[in-house]
Amino acid sequence: MNLNFYMPTKVIMGEDCISQNEMEFTKLGRKALIVTGAHSAKMNGSLDDIIKTLELVKIDYVIYDKVRSNPTVTCVYEGAKIARDNNVEFIIAIGGGSPMDAGKAIALLACQDIKEDEIFGGNISDKVLPMAFVPTTAGTGSEVTQYSILTNDKAETKTSISSPYLFPTVSFLDAKYMDSLSITTTINTAIDALSHAVEGMISVRATALTNAIAIESIQNIASCFEELRSEKVSRVAREKLLYGSMLAGIVIAHTGTTAVHSMGYSLTYFKDVDHGRANGLLLGGFLEFVQKAKPELIDTMLKAMNLTSVEEFQILMNQLFGDKEEITMEEMKKYTSIAIKAKNIKNSSVEPDENVILDIYKKSFGLS
Amino acid sequence: MNLNFYMPTKVIMGEDCISQNEMEFTKLGRKALIVTGAHSAKMNGSLDDIIKTLELVKIDYVIYDKVRSNPTVTCVYEGAKIARDNNVEFIIAIGGGSPMDAGKAIALLACQDIKEDEIFGGNISDKVLPMAFVPTTAGTGSEVTQYSILTNDKAETKTSISSPYLFPTVSFLDAKYMDSLSITTTINTAIDALSHAVEGMISVRATALTNAIAIESIQNIASCFEELRSEKVSRVAREKLLYGSMLAGIVIAHTGTTAVHSMGYSLTYFKDVDHGRANGLLLGGFLEFVQKAKPELIDTMLKAMNLTSVEEFQILMNQLFGDKEEITMEEMKKYTSIAIKAKNIKNSSVEPDENVILDIYKKSFGLS
Repeated sequence: MNLNFYMPTKVIMGEDCISQNEMEFTKLGRKALIVTGAHSAKMNGSLDDIIKTLELVKIDYVIYDKVRSNPTVTCVYEGAKIARDNNVEFIIAIGGGSPMDAGKAIALLACQDIKEDEIFGGNISDKVLPMAFVPTTAGTGSEVTQYSILTNDKAETKTSISSPYLFPTVSFLDAKYMDSLSITTTINTAIDALSHAVEGMISVRATALTNAIAIESIQNIASCFEELRSEKVSRVAREKLLYGSMLAGIVIAHTGTTAVHSMGYSLTYFKDVDHGRANGLLLGGFLEFVQKAKPELIDTMLKAMNLTSVEEFQILMNQLFGDKEEITMEEMKKYTSIAIKAKNIKNSSVEPDENVILDIYKKSFGLS
Repeated sequence: MNLNFYMPTKVIMGEDCISQNEMEFTKLGRKALIVTGAHSAKMNGSLDDIIKTLELVKIDYVIYDKVRSNPTVTCVYEGAKIARDNNVEFIIAIGGGSPMDAGKAIALLACQDIKEDEIFGGNISDKVLPMAFVPTTAGTGSEVTQYSILTNDKAETKTSISSPYLFPTVSFLDAKYMDSLSITTTINTAIDALSHAVEGMISVRATALTNAIAIESIQNIASCFEELRSEKVSRVAREKLLYGSMLAGIVIAHTGTTAVHSMGYSLTYFKDVDHGRANGLLLGGFLEFVQKAKPELIDTMLKAMNLTSVEEFQILMNQLFGDKEEITMEEMKKYTSIAIKAKNIKNSSVEPDENVILDIYKKSFGLS
């Protein structure tokens, strides 16, 4: 039995966990850069909770709220300059995957001089600012991973910086910040998390432990399928989704993602399809492909979802995602040629070739 | 849903994982103190593997091999003096729970001046030497916990030092070091680990995540029951036991132990009953007590063990442990009065009173 496990982030989950754990912030430093997007952290109460808590323990702060969806390299260099100029001692990232992924790169670039064309090169030391993370969607799992996924315009896709030094120091999980999420975002992020857990089990790096965590994740997310479908999501379901997405983050921190993510990135980059939606649209087709080689593995996942077939799963996804984007055959061929080069493809224990990838795109968008 | 999770130790499991990960040691320092017992690390090959690996990467070392079962406060101060006198930069602990628990206290006392009568006082800073741990039994889980459990002669029991700074930096899990373990030690340690997972689920601090890890642990340990009973334990079973005991360690790192451990400590302190055996002898009686208030919880555990009743579990324990020690009624009353004061008692979600504790002792040793 071979197995590696490393996830040093302290996870604190519960209602009002930020205000109830103010001393966690004093351990990180005396001045923070708050990295977030333009609106949601202000709307859902998370930014207020952070600011009140920082003021209570007399921690100074600066706000950088210019992170947009699918953050760019330019954005994280800008954030890092603000961190340096203001001599901040730690980073607080609030938001979905974009602010959290940007927060990690900013924590890194605030301490290390890395040129823009070397940022994906992997040569990273342990000098990184401490980080406190507050996820406000239940999908990315970035609050418990070592990945910072940025838009890489040179490669026309997303590329990740990965380093054991990029795990957040502490993450605060409070589902109340998700109460105001739209049903579309709730579904997209939930299925992104589901995709992490499922792809983790298909990864060549899956272990007994990551599989056990993935099953716990899948069970929790799937227990919310009915509420997602009915478009009424209770707080209890939001907690399960947040718990499930955190677990799925722990899974991919060890296994990485597989073909679905490689294929989804082009949909996001070229057609602006939301990341979670992109994964959800492709997942059924990939499961069908993997099932031919590993029927028992897929059965285990389906059982955890309380479903009996991949077809049933596909019907559920169709219901959740509604009308699909129009993608031409030419576009699909282009995305296939990009996806086949991604390292996540080789990370699949059942590896699709170009024909299979094109086939999954075609099936997913009704061209076959 | 409330939940805390923190386990920063890097776990590396697999055959020859020490020699295959020599660079992990260079991250810890240039000179090590190897903390171990008198014999087993020399017999089972683990000390040799460590020494070869250290020599390969040119790390100097000193050996302190004077840790005995149930290490004392005196022992850890002696080890810490050797660490200081030799200016070691990190600790390597090899062995069962005793060398690992001693290793943590030595890593602490090598850096911090704490008086002997204050060592259990909990006032610990983050100055602790880095630690690499090599468990050579599959029971304690100390390789993934923040506890250093020492014999406390003043309190006539075992007492733990607990600090988030006492998690080992890295732990190497190689089941080959367990091939030479006697069947008695194999059973005692396996049932100690089982007791950790089971008590973790009964703890007031149990969460969805610790329960999921506990179930994975119980399933793995229970899958070896037949081999333990037949006294022929394969390498595959040893890997499952090692995996299961590590998982159970992660559980108690979050939940602590409950009444069984409180009650077992007196058996070890006064009658020299092995720690795991003591837990195993008491566990059935405690499960029977908890079942009255929480039948579903006990059912979940039994199902994970592939058993149908607590009685069946008790029969299995009787088979594994054979003839029991003779304990007088007077002794049991004394142990009860010690156990009832232990903080682990209040940690049980179903809390036994003095009568219940005495009753469990009596049932466990055939006096009722």
